[in-house]
Amino acid sequence: MEEKIMLTGIRSTGTPHLGNILGVIIPSVSIANKNTKHSSCIFIADLHSMIQIEKENMITIKNNIYQIAAAWLAFGLNIDNCLFYRQSDVSLVTELAWYFNCFYPYQRLALAHAFKKEIKNKKKISVGLFTYPILMAADILLYNAKLIPVGKDQLQHIEITRRIANYFNKKIGKKLFVLPNAFLQKNMFVIGTDGKKMSKSKKNCINIFSSDEILKKQIMSIRTDSKSVKEKKNPETDYIMSLYSLIAPVDKIEIMKKRYLKGGYGYYEAKIALYEYIIHKFSSEREKFFSFIKNKSLLDHILASGAKKANRIAYERLNFIRKHLKFNPII
Amino acid sequence: MEEKIMLTGIRSTGTPHLGNILGVIIPSVSIANKNTKHSSCIFIADLHSMIQIEKENMITIKNNIYQIAAAWLAFGLNIDNCLFYRQSDVSLVTELAWYFNCFYPYQRLALAHAFKKEIKNKKKISVGLFTYPILMAADILLYNAKLIPVGKDQLQHIEITRRIANYFNKKIGKKLFVLPNAFLQKNMFVIGTDGKKMSKSKKNCINIFSSDEILKKQIMSIRTDSKSVKEKKNPETDYIMSLYSLIAPVDKIEIMKKRYLKGGYGYYEAKIALYEYIIHKFSSEREKFFSFIKNKSLLDHILASGAKKANRIAYERLNFIRKHLKFNPII
Repeated sequence: MEEKIMLTGIRSTGTPHLGNILGVIIPSVSIANKNTKHSSCIFIADLHSMIQIEKENMITIKNNIYQIAAAWLAFGLNIDNCLFYRQSDVSLVTELAWYFNCFYPYQRLALAHAFKKEIKNKKKISVGLFTYPILMAADILLYNAKLIPVGKDQLQHIEITRRIANYFNKKIGKKLFVLPNAFLQKNMFVIGTDGKKMSKSKKNCINIFSSDEILKKQIMSIRTDSKSVKEKKNPETDYIMSLYSLIAPVDKIEIMKKRYLKGGYGYYEAKIALYEYIIHKFSSEREKFFSFIKNKSLLDHILASGAKKANRIAYERLNFIRKHLKFNPII
Repeated sequence: MEEKIMLTGIRSTGTPHLGNILGVIIPSVSIANKNTKHSSCIFIADLHSMIQIEKENMITIKNNIYQIAAAWLAFGLNIDNCLFYRQSDVSLVTELAWYFNCFYPYQRLALAHAFKKEIKNKKKISVGLFTYPILMAADILLYNAKLIPVGKDQLQHIEITRRIANYFNKKIGKKLFVLPNAFLQKNMFVIGTDGKKMSKSKKNCINIFSSDEILKKQIMSIRTDSKSVKEKKNPETDYIMSLYSLIAPVDKIEIMKKRYLKGGYGYYEAKIALYEYIIHKFSSEREKFFSFIKNKSLLDHILASGAKKANRIAYERLNFIRKHLKFNPII
C-alpha cells in the first residue's frame, strides 16, 4: 500500500511563534520524520504571503523565509526524508492554480468564511486574498497529498480542495487527483497573551525564538484577573495555566494547579515558572535556531536542494495533468 | 529608439470568423510583418479559453488551436518576424498573473464591465472568468508590449493592465513594466448575420474558412427587412450592404448602393454578390487555410518553434521580475 503523502505550509509572515510550533511544526516534524522518503511536503508559503503585499514588504518576506526554515530545522526536521522547499522556488504550482480557477465557481469561492470576514473588515483586499484557497488547493493536489494537518479554521479550505479534485476528476474522466483529508490538530488553537488565538496579526504572540528578555516580557504581558497573591485562583480559566498545560509534563501541571487552588501563589510566580519551563524545554531548539540563523548560506543551500527535489516531482505531475488537458509537455 | 512591441491574442474557442479576420488578424499581420524581429507577439489564448470549461471541451480547445494557427498563416503572417505561440506553451505567464493577483484590489476587479455583465446573466461563472483580466495583464506585461490592438469593449482591460504596471512599478520602485496603450481598431466591430456584433456565442458568424455551401448558407441567413425586389432599399441600414462595404473596393460598393436606391435589386441578389465577393477576395487565403489544416504536424512544428522563442524571452523577463521581488531565479 502506498504511503499517504502529508503536506503542510507556513506563510512567511514572521518568525514562527509558540502557536505555530505547537500546532504545526512539532506534529508535522513527527510525521515527516517517520514517513518514508519524499512522502512529506513541508513548504514555506511565500507566494501566499504576497496576498497582503500592501502591508508586507518583499524584503521582509524574504528574511522571514530564513526564520521559518531555521525553526523547522531546529525542531529536528529530517530533510533527507521530505520535500522541504520555498514555495516560490516551485512556482509551477501557479499554473495548476490557473486551471483550478477555470474549474471553480466564483460564487462558491465568494462564500468562503475567511474571505467574507476579510471583506467585511477591510476597505481594500487583493484579488489574491480572494483566490488563495485555489492556490492552496494547487499546493496540495500538485503532490497528491492526502494528509493535511490543519486547524478548525482551515477545514473549509480542504473542502474546497476536495471539490476541485472531484470536479476535475469527473470532467477529465480519470482519477488525476487524490482527495485529501484534513488531519485535525487540536493544538492548532494555542491562546496568545490576551486569551485569543495566538496570531502575529493580533500581537499576542509568545516567540520562543526571541531573546530571553523579549520572551520574558511577552510572558509577563499575559492577561490575568486582578486577584492578589493571597487569594485562591481558578486554574481552568487562567491563561498562564492554559499555556503551561500545553508544554509542561503532567506532574508539574498538577503541582501548579494545586498552588492555584490553595492561594498564596501569585500570577507573577506562575509567569516566571512558565518562562523558566519554556527556556528549559526549548533550550536545544533555541540554540540550534540561532546557529542556523547565523548561517544563511547553509539555509539557502538546504532550501535549494529541497526545491530541486520538489521541482522534479512537480514537473512530472504537472506534465501528467497537462497531458490530460490536451496541452503539450512543458518546454 | 526601441520599437514598440505589439501583442495580440485570439481565444481558441472556434475557427476565426470574418469579425476576427477583419478586426484582428488582417491589421495585426500587417503590423507584425512590418515590425522588426520579435517585436510582435501573436498568441493563441488557450489558457483564457479554459474559463468557460463548463461548456468547452479540452479536445475542442486543442482542435481550435489548429484552426486559428492556420488562419493566421493563411493571412500571410511572417513567423520569422514575430513570436507566434500557443499560450499554454509559455505558461510562465500564470506565475506573473499570481503576483498581479496579490497587487490588484478585489473590489476594483469586481467593477469590470465584462464580469458584471456575466455575473448578471449567468447562474454560474468560474473564478477564472473573474480573474482573466489579470492573466491578460500578465500576457501583455511579461513581454513589455506597448501596442495592444483592441476593440472598444476591451479598453477597460488595457486600463487594468496599466494600473497593475503602474502600481507594481511604484511598489518595487523601478520601471519594471512599460505601460501599454490600447490601439483602437475600428474594424473590431463587425456585425453578424443578425446585425449584432459578430460573435461565436451569438451564432451570427460568417465563417470564410468553411465550405462554400456553409458559407453561402450563413450569408443567406443575413437578416433584412421585408421589402420586395421592386422596392427601393436603404443602403445605410442594411446588414448585407454593411458587410459588403467592409470588404469590397469603393467602386463596387458605389454600384451596389445605387442599385439599392434605385429598386429592382433584391436582397437575394445582394447576398449572392456578397458571397461571390468573399469567395473571390479570400480565395488564396482559403486555399492556404485548407492546406495548412491538412498538415497538423507542420502547424505543431511552427507553434513549437514559436513557443521556444517566446519562452526564452518570457523566462528571462520573469527572472528579472522575480529578482525585484526577492525571489530566487527559476530552477
